[in-house]
Amino acid sequence: MSNDSSSRIVAGLREWIAAAPPGAKLPSTRALVAQYGASPVTVQKALRTLTSQGMVESRPGVGTFVRAIRVARPNDYGWQTAALGSPQNRIPQLSTALRTVPNDVVALHSGYPDRELLPERLVRAAFTRAARRDAAVSRSPAAGLPELQAWFATELGKAAPVGVAPPALSDAVILPGSQSGLNTAFRALVGAGRPLLMESPTYWGAILAAAQSGVQVVPVPSGIRGPDPDDLARAFEHTGARALYAQPNFANPTGAQWSPVLADQVLDTVRQYGAFLIEDDWAHDFGITIDPAPIAARDDSGHVVYLRSLTKSVSPAVRIAGIIARGPARERILADAQAESMYVSGMLQAVALDVVTQPAWHTHLRSFRHQLAARRDLLIGALRDHAPTAHLEAVPQGGLNLWVRLPDTTDLVRLVRDCETAGVIIAPGNEWFPAEPTGPYLRLNYSGPNPGAFTDGARIIGQVLAQQQA
Amino acid sequence: MSNDSSSRIVAGLREWIAAAPPGAKLPSTRALVAQYGASPVTVQKALRTLTSQGMVESRPGVGTFVRAIRVARPNDYGWQTAALGSPQNRIPQLSTALRTVPNDVVALHSGYPDRELLPERLVRAAFTRAARRDAAVSRSPAAGLPELQAWFATELGKAAPVGVAPPALSDAVILPGSQSGLNTAFRALVGAGRPLLMESPTYWGAILAAAQSGVQVVPVPSGIRGPDPDDLARAFEHTGARALYAQPNFANPTGAQWSPVLADQVLDTVRQYGAFLIEDDWAHDFGITIDPAPIAARDDSGHVVYLRSLTKSVSPAVRIAGIIARGPARERILADAQAESMYVSGMLQAVALDVVTQPAWHTHLRSFRHQLAARRDLLIGALRDHAPTAHLEAVPQGGLNLWVRLPDTTDLVRLVRDCETAGVIIAPGNEWFPAEPTGPYLRLNYSGPNPGAFTDGARIIGQVLAQQQA
Repeated sequence: MSNDSSSRIVAGLREWIAAAPPGAKLPSTRALVAQYGASPVTVQKALRTLTSQGMVESRPGVGTFVRAIRVARPNDYGWQTAALGSPQNRIPQLSTALRTVPNDVVALHSGYPDRELLPERLVRAAFTRAARRDAAVSRSPAAGLPELQAWFATELGKAAPVGVAPPALSDAVILPGSQSGLNTAFRALVGAGRPLLMESPTYWGAILAAAQSGVQVVPVPSGIRGPDPDDLARAFEHTGARALYAQPNFANPTGAQWSPVLADQVLDTVRQYGAFLIEDDWAHDFGITIDPAPIAARDDSGHVVYLRSLTKSVSPAVRIAGIIARGPARERILADAQAESMYVSGMLQAVALDVVTQPAWHTHLRSFRHQLAARRDLLIGALRDHAPTAHLEAVPQGGLNLWVRLPDTTDLVRLVRDCETAGVIIAPGNEWFPAEPTGPYLRLNYSGPNPGAFTDGARIIGQVLAQQQA
Repeated sequence: MSNDSSSRIVAGLREWIAAAPPGAKLPSTRALVAQYGASPVTVQKALRTLTSQGMVESRPGVGTFVRAIRVARPNDYGWQTAALGSPQNRIPQLSTALRTVPNDVVALHSGYPDRELLPERLVRAAFTRAARRDAAVSRSPAAGLPELQAWFATELGKAAPVGVAPPALSDAVILPGSQSGLNTAFRALVGAGRPLLMESPTYWGAILAAAQSGVQVVPVPSGIRGPDPDDLARAFEHTGARALYAQPNFANPTGAQWSPVLADQVLDTVRQYGAFLIEDDWAHDFGITIDPAPIAARDDSGHVVYLRSLTKSVSPAVRIAGIIARGPARERILADAQAESMYVSGMLQAVALDVVTQPAWHTHLRSFRHQLAARRDLLIGALRDHAPTAHLEAVPQGGLNLWVRLPDTTDLVRLVRDCETAGVIIAPGNEWFPAEPTGPYLRLNYSGPNPGAFTDGARIIGQVLAQQQA
């Protein structure tokens, strides 16, 4: 086959070229014909291939030479456009909340607590200890280290009221972070093209995971007291959805806290519609004036699938989350997690377990709570004093964020840009709406670096707002 | 609304029950009607709800009582069957290769090198060092730590021949292990419902990822010399596929090593069809008689997307892989990886980088190579002596496995079971075929624990085989 012969000559000449100095003259076509037992046409084809790849250049009447420079042409990846086609799911851009910014700005945009709020010494000590243990060189079971599964199950079980069976160790599946957990839950319990109810506004990472997994998002309006149960029932009724994603405790971004009555109403509704509540207890360690009350603790009928992450409260380098689910749902979730990432680093699991089982962890959480309260109140006060037109919908009882409504005429894009120019990074609220935003909002994180600059930050936001209203 | 009133009564009574001793008598219906301002029908509905949840029991004519035991009924999760529906993608069971087995058996099934072959001291020292560094408490950029991106890009770039532009740092994306890498590559470059060519047999984890991502697998026969280029061209032509997944170096399970000529032919073919080659260089650190030669090093046109994992050679607890891709493909891959898992633990990245940049790493790899050679030859000799009807298709020049063809009449399921009864764990070859297996094969891993037992293992396989042929 002439095609094969040509490839063979190309391969041979590539080796020859690799060993030759730039500018070296290649053997003549006649010599190559003899050497490879190929036709002149085939040799010419091979030389054209090498020329098109930029490895040689031919000077007519003189010969063919090894090119002097490794790369001269700009690469053209245009062919990939046809190969890739349009993306199957339109994945939104990453949120402002993930941006890394310089140290000299006032950063109110982040989704993560500042390093000074983390149990840094516990984390470092746990890594040092685990470095000496089996965890550093062994493979974790697919569902996770049994001790860590037990910890997640026990924590939730302690909140179970009389008459509700606590989850078993085997109901817990360990995942490499809550983003993976959301993707796995949406794929395993809903599936591409099928409807998933979500609060609006809600966590942008969940909106991203919904796009990634191809589920069809059905937004249900939600505010500082959570969704309206009638809205929810209607959404289940009209869409045939079999799952609701929600954050019933200290919701991100609104700070909403569901009342026990609402929690029971939502539980009744998901049971009535034979549906799942995917409860994202993202802020379990971030209670300020109250402790979180997971709805999953009140359910042993398998209707609530519970997601609990340690990444934000232990360390961003310890990407560990647990999902607690019962019945076939748990099997579906485990199968998806295995197919997606096989198993989770046992080292990260061992470190997470070490940290949260130290007596000092509880001391840390108490101190963390006081610091969050002080930071929250500091930012609220600064906004009241310096940005009076920014309306705080409610004082959050936990979590990391204030959800602030701005005057209706605010140009949010310009506001964010002007604040950034003045050294204040803020996150536009639009990123938390699965569909159109219902107004101009900001999410302001009070757990970021340098709370001493909150007053300056609020002053600048207030000035930029005032300029827009002028 | 009577539904809401009933929920309110249920919530109130739950709190009452939580505080009451088992066997306590609930207030009468009349008392509850007065207390909650609800109708007797609503109160009865609330009591039925509590009864159905196992929290109370009613004794007709006597009253309603708090149940004595927390749980007595078996849970019924049958409703989940309707909510979950059929799985969208039939995900195969996990491979035998992932099984954890007792220490007293001969384990030839595993996909991972035994702990004694790992750079254990390097890994422990790297974790201890990294525990003191920023990596332990900070968040990695989404594409990975720049130093680790640079390491992956440089390693591949060193293999680039003259005239081929080496990859840039920014072409590398860090992922939490190669299984995640396969899923991301299949989703980002192919997409659900679209065709992907795969060698058959091939790595079971890739078959699993193909099912998980919903791509339509098109098997292309492959043997100890890799696929036939004409078969490949026909498959591209007939299916319109725009991607091929392959392991050109020390393929798992066959040990196949593509010749340079075949590598060029396949490159020419994927270029001709405007397609991607997803090159899984899983055994880059497992060369025995030769070094691996990544095809990606020969391509700067963006046609080869290169996947390289450190999990198997560094430590199963260090789940780190790199994907190198150029052009829009790289953007598509990064967007998928971010939406799936946000970012990879910087701690695991720092440890991986520390290990592979130590001078002792190269010493370790040389020793590893010698041990792999000795183990491979030991198992080959033992099979030749004790299981002569097990035919080794080729002596692999690298990798961790022997691919053994058994007599056509072998009952593979019974063989695996009988060997296990006799204390030898082996992996049936069927798991490596994306469609029907073409014969009875075994994959035997020579990097597992206790090579001193290889002779015993081969003897038992030989005996069980002989019994079947008798």
